[in-house]
Amino acid sequence: MRILVVGASGTIGGAVTDALEARGHEVARAGHSGGGLRADLADKASIAALYRTVGRLDAVVCTAGVAKFGALEALDDADFARSIDNKMMGQVNLVRLGLGAVAPGGSFTLTSGTLTVSPTPGTCAVAMVGGAVEAFARAAALDLEGRYRINVVSPGWVAESRVKMGLEPMPGIWAADLAEYYVRAVEGEETGETLIAEAPL
Amino acid sequence: MRILVVGASGTIGGAVTDALEARGHEVARAGHSGGGLRADLADKASIAALYRTVGRLDAVVCTAGVAKFGALEALDDADFARSIDNKMMGQVNLVRLGLGAVAPGGSFTLTSGTLTVSPTPGTCAVAMVGGAVEAFARAAALDLEGRYRINVVSPGWVAESRVKMGLEPMPGIWAADLAEYYVRAVEGEETGETLIAEAPL
Repeated sequence: MRILVVGASGTIGGAVTDALEARGHEVARAGHSGGGLRADLADKASIAALYRTVGRLDAVVCTAGVAKFGALEALDDADFARSIDNKMMGQVNLVRLGLGAVAPGGSFTLTSGTLTVSPTPGTCAVAMVGGAVEAFARAAALDLEGRYRINVVSPGWVAESRVKMGLEPMPGIWAADLAEYYVRAVEGEETGETLIAEAPL
Repeated sequence: MRILVVGASGTIGGAVTDALEARGHEVARAGHSGGGLRADLADKASIAALYRTVGRLDAVVCTAGVAKFGALEALDDADFARSIDNKMMGQVNLVRLGLGAVAPGGSFTLTSGTLTVSPTPGTCAVAMVGGAVEAFARAAALDLEGRYRINVVSPGWVAESRVKMGLEPMPGIWAADLAEYYVRAVEGEETGETLIAEAPL
């Protein structure tokens, strides 16, 4: 398959790219920075330009998307707006605009995060947009039934990120293990699902 | 308790108002139209004005909030934006701005809908904003712990609405039965919960 990975220069996206290539797929890399095609999830025109540039695809994987950490009373209007524009509507727009670019029978795999279901203090905007993405995919899957599949991977705390923060890697999941959930979503038959990725498959 | 019901002129809000008054609470009614105080959930200034007008509260219940029905490819940018501004950020802002108006120990009870978990075709924006509200409340409850409670009621298909559409009332839930879930959220001890309200308590 020819697969667009948005967020390919990130920890998760890099591991997903490696895993997909190891399975024989061709990966088109995109992201806000780093090598590959440039795309800003928060900018719909940028997503449209990405699809015009990248050419025909069999699947799209998004491991990008930022949302603002902070306690309810520490977040301002702009923090909520940026979280919505980027991780939430950015991923929704990646699907909306991707329908013409991805071949029928293809798939979209988005990213939420386990804070959506198991939040900690200071995560209400992050959890909110993750919950939106999961519910969107569950419902959109019905509209796309028989034409496209759409799923969400909900990563636990990435072990590499924990190490960077000076923590023990566990309880976390290594990006390479996390990548297997994305591979499963791309190669599998499921649609409308949220794959909880807190431990190796 | 003195309780603000936003959406009081609606089918659910009217039943919630009746149920709260029957339990001896004082209800301040607000809504986009109908009797009582006027408030537009999509307009943050309008919510701020509502709180300035209404005075001190012990709880806030929101049964208002609209989101756009339609299949993924039938929804345009404005449909998504209005759904976000109204049912999603409208309810989030009702909490954010209400923190100064509601007495410590008070509560917020918001509304999602069972399409969030059990969607049907043509509901991806509705499901999306409901999922956002549920995840927001689950996380925000941790930031507000010990000061305010926040919960969500997820109504099934309201029987009165089914009848208006020419359907049999069942499988549905009468607004009066649904109202008991809101009463439980207001009077109870739980926080961060989504109460699935598809059948009488």
